[in-house]
Amino acid sequence: MRPAIGPGTTEYEWMTWPEIAAAAAADAPVVIAVGSTEQHGPHLPVSADWVIPQTLLRLAAAKRPFVVGPALRLGYRSRPASGGGQQFPGTLSLRATTFIAMIEDLLDELIRTGFRRIMLYNWHFENTNFVYEPAYLVSGRSPGVKIVVVENAMPEFGDADLDVLFPDGFPGLALEHAAVIETSLFEYLRPATVRMDRIVDDAPARNVPWDVLPIDESMSTATGVLASATQASAAKGELLTKRIVDHIVSILDAEFEPIERDAMLLTADRDS
Amino acid sequence: MRPAIGPGTTEYEWMTWPEIAAAAAADAPVVIAVGSTEQHGPHLPVSADWVIPQTLLRLAAAKRPFVVGPALRLGYRSRPASGGGQQFPGTLSLRATTFIAMIEDLLDELIRTGFRRIMLYNWHFENTNFVYEPAYLVSGRSPGVKIVVVENAMPEFGDADLDVLFPDGFPGLALEHAAVIETSLFEYLRPATVRMDRIVDDAPARNVPWDVLPIDESMSTATGVLASATQASAAKGELLTKRIVDHIVSILDAEFEPIERDAMLLTADRDS
Amino acid sequence: MRPAIGPGTTEYEWMTWPEIAAAAAADAPVVIAVGSTEQHGPHLPVSADWVIPQTLLRLAAAKRPFVVGPALRLGYRSRPASGGGQQFPGTLSLRATTFIAMIEDLLDELIRTGFRRIMLYNWHFENTNFVYEPAYLVSGRSPGVKIVVVENAMPEFGDADLDVLFPDGFPGLALEHAAVIETSLFEYLRPATVRMDRIVDDAPARNVPWDVLPIDESMSTATGVLASATQASAAKGELLTKRIVDHIVSILDAEFEPIERDAMLLTADRDS
Amino acid sequence: MRPAIGPGTTEYEWMTWPEIAAAAAADAPVVIAVGSTEQHGPHLPVSADWVIPQTLLRLAAAKRPFVVGPALRLGYRSRPASGGGQQFPGTLSLRATTFIAMIEDLLDELIRTGFRRIMLYNWHFENTNFVYEPAYLVSGRSPGVKIVVVENAMPEFGDADLDVLFPDGFPGLALEHAAVIETSLFEYLRPATVRMDRIVDDAPARNVPWDVLPIDESMSTATGVLASATQASAAKGELLTKRIVDHIVSILDAEFEPIERDAMLLTADRDS
Amino acid sequence: MRPAIGPGTTEYEWMTWPEIAAAAAADAPVVIAVGSTEQHGPHLPVSADWVIPQTLLRLAAAKRPFVVGPALRLGYRSRPASGGGQQFPGTLSLRATTFIAMIEDLLDELIRTGFRRIMLYNWHFENTNFVYEPAYLVSGRSPGVKIVVVENAMPEFGDADLDVLFPDGFPGLALEHAAVIETSLFEYLRPATVRMDRIVDDAPARNVPWDVLPIDESMSTATGVLASATQASAAKGELLTKRIVDHIVSILDAEFEPIERDAMLLTADRDS
Amino acid sequence: MRPAIGPGTTEYEWMTWPEIAAAAAADAPVVIAVGSTEQHGPHLPVSADWVIPQTLLRLAAAKRPFVVGPALRLGYRSRPASGGGQQFPGTLSLRATTFIAMIEDLLDELIRTGFRRIMLYNWHFENTNFVYEPAYLVSGRSPGVKIVVVENAMPEFGDADLDVLFPDGFPGLALEHAAVIETSLFEYLRPATVRMDRIVDDAPARNVPWDVLPIDESMSTATGVLASATQASAAKGELLTKRIVDHIVSILDAEFEPIERDAMLLTADRDS
Repeated sequence: MRPAIGPGTTEYEWMTWPEIAAAAAADAPVVIAVGSTEQHGPHLPVSADWVIPQTLLRLAAAKRPFVVGPALRLGYRSRPASGGGQQFPGTLSLRATTFIAMIEDLLDELIRTGFRRIMLYNWHFENTNFVYEPAYLVSGRSPGVKIVVVENAMPEFGDADLDVLFPDGFPGLALEHAAVIETSLFEYLRPATVRMDRIVDDAPARNVPWDVLPIDESMSTATGVLASATQASAAKGELLTKRIVDHIVSILDAEFEPIERDAMLLTADRDS
Repeated sequence: MRPAIGPGTTEYEWMTWPEIAAAAAADAPVVIAVGSTEQHGPHLPVSADWVIPQTLLRLAAAKRPFVVGPALRLGYRSRPASGGGQQFPGTLSLRATTFIAMIEDLLDELIRTGFRRIMLYNWHFENTNFVYEPAYLVSGRSPGVKIVVVENAMPEFGDADLDVLFPDGFPGLALEHAAVIETSLFEYLRPATVRMDRIVDDAPARNVPWDVLPIDESMSTATGVLASATQASAAKGELLTKRIVDHIVSILDAEFEPIERDAMLLTADRDS
Repeated sequence: MRPAIGPGTTEYEWMTWPEIAAAAAADAPVVIAVGSTEQHGPHLPVSADWVIPQTLLRLAAAKRPFVVGPALRLGYRSRPASGGGQQFPGTLSLRATTFIAMIEDLLDELIRTGFRRIMLYNWHFENTNFVYEPAYLVSGRSPGVKIVVVENAMPEFGDADLDVLFPDGFPGLALEHAAVIETSLFEYLRPATVRMDRIVDDAPARNVPWDVLPIDESMSTATGVLASATQASAAKGELLTKRIVDHIVSILDAEFEPIERDAMLLTADRDS
Repeated sequence: MRPAIGPGTTEYEWMTWPEIAAAAAADAPVVIAVGSTEQHGPHLPVSADWVIPQTLLRLAAAKRPFVVGPALRLGYRSRPASGGGQQFPGTLSLRATTFIAMIEDLLDELIRTGFRRIMLYNWHFENTNFVYEPAYLVSGRSPGVKIVVVENAMPEFGDADLDVLFPDGFPGLALEHAAVIETSLFEYLRPATVRMDRIVDDAPARNVPWDVLPIDESMSTATGVLASATQASAAKGELLTKRIVDHIVSILDAEFEPIERDAMLLTADRDS
Repeated sequence: MRPAIGPGTTEYEWMTWPEIAAAAAADAPVVIAVGSTEQHGPHLPVSADWVIPQTLLRLAAAKRPFVVGPALRLGYRSRPASGGGQQFPGTLSLRATTFIAMIEDLLDELIRTGFRRIMLYNWHFENTNFVYEPAYLVSGRSPGVKIVVVENAMPEFGDADLDVLFPDGFPGLALEHAAVIETSLFEYLRPATVRMDRIVDDAPARNVPWDVLPIDESMSTATGVLASATQASAAKGELLTKRIVDHIVSILDAEFEPIERDAMLLTADRDS
Repeated sequence: MRPAIGPGTTEYEWMTWPEIAAAAAADAPVVIAVGSTEQHGPHLPVSADWVIPQTLLRLAAAKRPFVVGPALRLGYRSRPASGGGQQFPGTLSLRATTFIAMIEDLLDELIRTGFRRIMLYNWHFENTNFVYEPAYLVSGRSPGVKIVVVENAMPEFGDADLDVLFPDGFPGLALEHAAVIETSLFEYLRPATVRMDRIVDDAPARNVPWDVLPIDESMSTATGVLASATQASAAKGELLTKRIVDHIVSILDAEFEPIERDAMLLTADRDS
């Protein structure tokens, strides 16, 4: 695996402009992690929603040649039943209009740079649809560019996996916020950042398929964890990592013609 | 110095929501690095404009207790005579309206979280004035909150420093893009990311105090370096780091009442 | 049941302003059907997404006293795997920003009129999240007002119902566009409008959980029907109507204190 | 006359997408009623401003082949001297920016669908100019499309007609809100919806050719009727209907080449 | 009469800030001429629509004490039948959204300065309604402030005046663009700016009460004069000036409590 | 020198449309003074920031043939250390978004009129960057048009000039608001408007290179003068005028091919 920073890297933020230009000229895909800054319980950092997908993309980039774009760290407003809700301190959300405009500008600039294959990989559930709109707007004025919009980050897990991950039964993805999946991923991918002694199980007092404003706090929790987090483990994180990275790779394979890894590197890096 | 991630950190992105809430409740200042993603020559990564101020803030945070907020990685459009200009691949800029809206939302959310002392520390010259506008808008609706807007990141350097930094004479800050100051800072703070073998000296063929659209490329350079970069050194970077960190600290001291570092930590972290 | 138009009606569009004012003064809820104008195959009119929920609300209004607000006939852009996509003629969609602004204005005006209990009942899948944003914005400036956001119009169907509705197995709601559910509802509620001789079964050649732009038409169909429509029947429509009306009523009961039907009528109508 | 709903209809909302596509392909004009939801006194429903023009368009559509588009039910803010003003409950108005954006999107979508001849027929006086702006914007980017903007819905009435309609003298159109013209039209076109026992005569205490904000209620009335409504009659409504329908037809004849009615129907409907 | 510029002036643009603050503190009304930059035929400057009302306000200011605010020189788009249309070179129009925002900001700032009585006096027909919207928005957030919106600049002329002004019959105000009224006013108020040798009579080939886009140039003229301009005279201009100034004064008298002229002057000016 | 108004003028606001069209057809540059309405101490009118550059452009227009466009009288918000700040009455500022939109529209309309060489000449320091954005946006859609953006109005003054202008030492341009430069220019160019008896010297109690919100009034002054104004003189104004007009001319010479003055005049004016 190439170094994460320095010559030969394919992480956009650590590349120089000639390296980026070379990758775009080689028709390398660029994949953007779309996340948020949102409370993730007492045990995970508020950056969880972009740290996780960005880390998974880095792992995927070892399997297929593409540029890992700059993660979007700010997302749309948190909602009680999926992210705890806007009543939590720490959560930093954008208005819908700002979020759409930000992605619109980012896409326009990636295309100006020369990229013709772009994938938006969204981890924050509440961003759904708000990611599609800017992609739609930009696509309409960008002939020759293909944009893949992945608003649902997860693969469908098979029964065998579900048995391992949720031996007591799968509660559904809806409440999987700061719970088994995300905590396990952190324990595997970023263990130093997990406050292990503060992991809790929690659940909303009220769980209904609609929303109420002003926010009905009984539809969220006091901790910000929406289900059981104590059942998380690094081993589950490893399994999840494998499955999700494979999923990302399968989308890339389905949508983009493969390129040679070397082709996307600047000559100097290629020779090094 | 506290760990950068994990319990006790004061980096917003690596804090949990209860830790952030505790810091806000203690009236800790939060400081936001405002940067850009912009070409920085063949030798520096495009993230230079947020990596540098974020790193400097981390160092300042060792001297005064405050929260290092999430850096803003996307800035306003690059202009030829200060950043090389929008004709460069790799540069990812926002429209003025998007940039203003993004900061407006971020400020609103920090205030909702409970922060009453906010500092915006801008490194990207072209962001000037665009940072002030959202601060003005948010301030007007946020009684009891103080926002310090630092659009010019640099201290005034004394003659002795200028003699060290620019022994052949100071060309002025205007063209100091990807040149002595930024390259030296990278060589000192992030040496692994500098492509040392690609550092060049360059200068615009044409240097006038106005702009032309469509962009007149003779007002920029082919490399993206706008002055001499080869005169950079890690030793200069160390001097610059010291001066700028002191400058940041002096602004904090001038504008915000001091608090105890321990007060801004969650009880659990304080005891650890 | 009161007449649908004329004195005593509780359909907003057919009420006079003193009647509306009286209903608001009595704290009657007002429920807004949020729909779209979107292709619904060769056999259903493009108004299906607002005609269905508006008709269901009328039936619910016979069971609980509330005002049936003006249906929103224009929705957010159609997407291939849920509504066929924007490549279809006939579909009339709004930009995200327009859609959000329209609902924001509508809510502000209902509140100015005096309503303090508002429910947004959305039938068009692609509107999800875009309905929440204006509700959030308006709620923040409207103390004393409760807004219920129902973005998912359907109840959870029990196994017995699923056996009746989908004897060959339930394909999932995702592709239920212009298919069994909507066609059955039309055959029961609006039979004159169904082009019975044009009902078809169809399915996308490609069914993946992400989107591609420009639109990949293999993810939609040529007819606009996304699953089997021929299995629809008026009898299924009757069952669906009962279940969904009960669902609407249950949400009203869960979220709003009951009022007397007579209290929401203008004195003159009450006496008539 | 073809059925209003079902096969062969030319009402957009009750057509299927292939029927709409066929009409557009035949170069059929599409005419949009632009209205409002606004108080219309104690005797007319708040939907008067879109119900009237939509009904008149249906009658005109029997005389000339065109598609009766979806009526716009929400308009710009009511003003005291023309619609009673925004202090009335029941009135649901859009901001100028929302109203303009909504029409802009609608026009873009009709054009995407294939229509090249569009007429906007406005009944709500306060919409004036706000209808022109989106038509202007869309026209500038839509070569080959003709948009006719009718902001003043009324023909010029001859003296003979005025003698019949206003035997005591014509007070001018300005105050004809919920008065003789609109009430007569309702008594003729939609008699079941008129609260006959609540019709009143009224007049603003103050009638000046300017506006005051905050609204000076003496420039409006307590009932919302701005002139005499009791002089209305179904017979006057019949005369008005004839004159206005003829006016609509004359605009169509003046601006659009005629097409054959059959050409705008889908083959299946044509044969039926 | 006080000097137009220098101490004692009540023209906003020539006042100093302490003078403006004193006038606002004395509750002086401020009146804003709302105009445009628009073709006015071959004989009048493009500034006619703001030069005329600003000059008339100066004359009215000699009769009643108020501040003559800064004229708005850019207006909404010209339309063929009222201003010649946007196909003319020289015309500089704003989008509706820009125009509304500009007036909104101006009103907010006048109110921040301390003015509580504001009148918007519009001369450009196409600005109608676009002036009302920002006044409505600002009024809603500005308790204690009265805004008078005069969108129709003209008084109703009596028969005797019409006989003098239009001896051959009054064609109506609609086409009075760069014709008798405006040319006469210029010949009286600003004779040096009139190109007397280029005055023409003209008339649209087609005169219908609706609009067509793209612009149908037969609804405008080649010269930009929409009626007879040769019948203009300085004598008519004097009569018009008297009538319109009286009209402005009558609105001020009707809407605002009188103040003493001296009260609105800074002490220093008062004594001078 | 041609007359300022009437035939032969090249001031946009006093030209007729055929004269403007002729100038544009001859490829004449058009130069727009970008200013503000902002407090300028107790001795200068609030229009200083557009009156000065507009007057200087008129003088430059005697030396080179170009059209003096309509000055923009409203600018971006005043800031304490450069213009005194938004706490001053009299200052009338636009939001950033309004200001950008206004210039965007103006540029679009000048280009529609036929101008292909446009210069924006900004006098109000706080407008910096906000002028560049609309120029960038419009340039991107206007092939064949050149826009010169002069955000810093001043030439670099030589030492000899500085000795004359600031015999006690040059304090820097930053605080030169309503001080020596602007007061001298007014004394020379517009002496009747200067309140000579109210000229003062002043200085902020606090002078730091950052901003604070809510505004820290110690960073501004009570008078609005930010430095010494009493050292101003008409003689200095004459020197400044010469230097700045030469600077304007030098930019025009550097950026635009010269044209013949006569070519930009309408035939009729040329012959007169």
